[in-house]
Amino acid sequence: MTEEHTSGSVISRSRLEFLFDGVFAIAMSILVLELKVPDLVDRHSIDELARALAHDTSTFISYLISFAVLGLFWYRHNHQYHHFRVITRRMLGLHFVQLAAAAFFPFCAALFGRYPFNALSGVVYVACILVYAWASLANWIVAKREGSLGPEITPEDFLRSRNRWLRSCLVMSSLFAFYLFKVLTR
Amino acid sequence: MTEEHTSGSVISRSRLEFLFDGVFAIAMSILVLELKVPDLVDRHSIDELARALAHDTSTFISYLISFAVLGLFWYRHNHQYHHFRVITRRMLGLHFVQLAAAAFFPFCAALFGRYPFNALSGVVYVACILVYAWASLANWIVAKREGSLGPEITPEDFLRSRNRWLRSCLVMSSLFAFYLFKVLTR
Amino acid sequence: MTEEHTSGSVISRSRLEFLFDGVFAIAMSILVLELKVPDLVDRHSIDELARALAHDTSTFISYLISFAVLGLFWYRHNHQYHHFRVITRRMLGLHFVQLAAAAFFPFCAALFGRYPFNALSGVVYVACILVYAWASLANWIVAKREGSLGPEITPEDFLRSRNRWLRSCLVMSSLFAFYLFKVLTR
Amino acid sequence: MTEEHTSGSVISRSRLEFLFDGVFAIAMSILVLELKVPDLVDRHSIDELARALAHDTSTFISYLISFAVLGLFWYRHNHQYHHFRVITRRMLGLHFVQLAAAAFFPFCAALFGRYPFNALSGVVYVACILVYAWASLANWIVAKREGSLGPEITPEDFLRSRNRWLRSCLVMSSLFAFYLFKVLTR
Repeated sequence: MTEEHTSGSVISRSRLEFLFDGVFAIAMSILVLELKVPDLVDRHSIDELARALAHDTSTFISYLISFAVLGLFWYRHNHQYHHFRVITRRMLGLHFVQLAAAAFFPFCAALFGRYPFNALSGVVYVACILVYAWASLANWIVAKREGSLGPEITPEDFLRSRNRWLRSCLVMSSLFAFYLFKVLTR
Repeated sequence: MTEEHTSGSVISRSRLEFLFDGVFAIAMSILVLELKVPDLVDRHSIDELARALAHDTSTFISYLISFAVLGLFWYRHNHQYHHFRVITRRMLGLHFVQLAAAAFFPFCAALFGRYPFNALSGVVYVACILVYAWASLANWIVAKREGSLGPEITPEDFLRSRNRWLRSCLVMSSLFAFYLFKVLTR
Repeated sequence: MTEEHTSGSVISRSRLEFLFDGVFAIAMSILVLELKVPDLVDRHSIDELARALAHDTSTFISYLISFAVLGLFWYRHNHQYHHFRVITRRMLGLHFVQLAAAAFFPFCAALFGRYPFNALSGVVYVACILVYAWASLANWIVAKREGSLGPEITPEDFLRSRNRWLRSCLVMSSLFAFYLFKVLTR
Repeated sequence: MTEEHTSGSVISRSRLEFLFDGVFAIAMSILVLELKVPDLVDRHSIDELARALAHDTSTFISYLISFAVLGLFWYRHNHQYHHFRVITRRMLGLHFVQLAAAAFFPFCAALFGRYPFNALSGVVYVACILVYAWASLANWIVAKREGSLGPEITPEDFLRSRNRWLRSCLVMSSLFAFYLFKVLTR
């Protein structure tokens, strides 16, 4: 963890990776804090507890979806980061945008889990994913332009990966537009 | 932490280990957040504070048990992971199931600590452990099938370790069936 | 992570780096816990949710500013730490002051986000940054005096970096004086 | 992080170190969660906010003390762990006792900060430190007996370090007895 700064890198590659993984591990773990133990009148009543838990069904579902989203992003970042030889100033800035979105995500997950049929919470939830996805795509393109990508990445590899992010961005943008439309035309 | 992806591995072994350890460290640490400082009428009354803390006895016990469960799982994963030479796509998926169960565990611990004699909270608590245990067992078997296990693992080692997980799974499944029976026949 | 203690270092360089990065990752991630999901009367009302979220605007802004402050401090520490060859007892003490300020920062961010126009919350917020900044500056100067800086740091490098921290300290001190003046002359 | 298990070690040295540092980083960071932003009637009133914060003075002091206690324990563990060549089963068990105490500490800190003059909260706070200190001492002695200490530790070094822990244990035990006496003779 105390590697030399590679020439051209504004930050130690391994420390940024560490911060990134740490923020993701924490965001994935504090998703659960939104689930509150219900207050029961009769502590032994199975029916009352079942009703209380059933009431939180959408929060449970949001937990699972949000965990999967964070897991997928973490997995994809792993692949992307692997090929960044240096971290330029612009790439560091984009990483912070990604981190801010990931750290903010537990709030969005809680909001969406509580009000799944309120289009505005959909807007917030999708917006957070959208910011992350666009920053990832930008990171990949900037890395190419600033010469950070390793020589093992052929132009075809670059395009394939870029297009995958682009598709994700477009899908999420459509979903965002859909929710936004519902909010604006209420 | 910036090791090369071993051929066949869909993810850096060390980064997955890092995420795993991070999620476990956080899950073990936020178990305590369920313990709330009681509100006292008389701030200096030892008796009132003693009664308030005694009221939370089951939460304290759940804290200790749950910490031990997470510690044991972490310990066993250490042994298992040590022999995975590569992480295949299927193994990564199973790891995410394990992580989601571990990150979800603090909620189960809080629920069980609050309602230890409600069979439904027992169902939830044991179900979470069960998901983790089955995913661990599956990971071990999949690792064998997909050739990820190192050559130091003899067929006897493999069976011994598999059977230990299998026993854990069966014990937890029985406990789950017991609680489920109590819920269904209330 | 199990490197030998360098002679003269009272602590393993890499473990302190690890603790530092861990505390920063957690502080950055728990900033979000101050954002609470609002309680709505009508769960489907977009207007009600919009009003509730708008009410928390200053908390959102405080989230973004505070995330950027922690990110900037982490980035600068990365550069500083890179040149510390050994960690002396005094430097370790200063690191703990920095860590205590960083770990305390989420409370300041929450307070400032809730009462942005109350000069006292400004005092608390700026005081926390101030403590961190002065401790960083002191760390740099102490490292120089106690011979911890690597030979790659020329006297000009040292002065340039020292003066940058000094400027930050002076700016924050002025801001602190401004808020304090407002509190005292209310 | 993927080092081979040293022969005789039941666990990877570096992963245990990682879990340890992670739990400490989180415990140190979630101490702050006990500090709640006060609810003000007049959001712009400096006096009201000052009174509300002054009301939490003991929680602030407990924050600082508890942060220092955790920092000191982490620092001392660093020195101790450095000399453990292998981690035996018994030492792993003792490490989990230390971790459970450290992870439990934020609750004790919150309780003590809220009721500093209630002898029972003193009992709980000191008991948690006591468990940690005795487990540390036991770890050191067990490491010696089971041959885990490196050859660089002379018998004098061993005794010096053991006696330092012993002193800490005795001081905390006296404090514990003092608080317990106050509780029992109320």
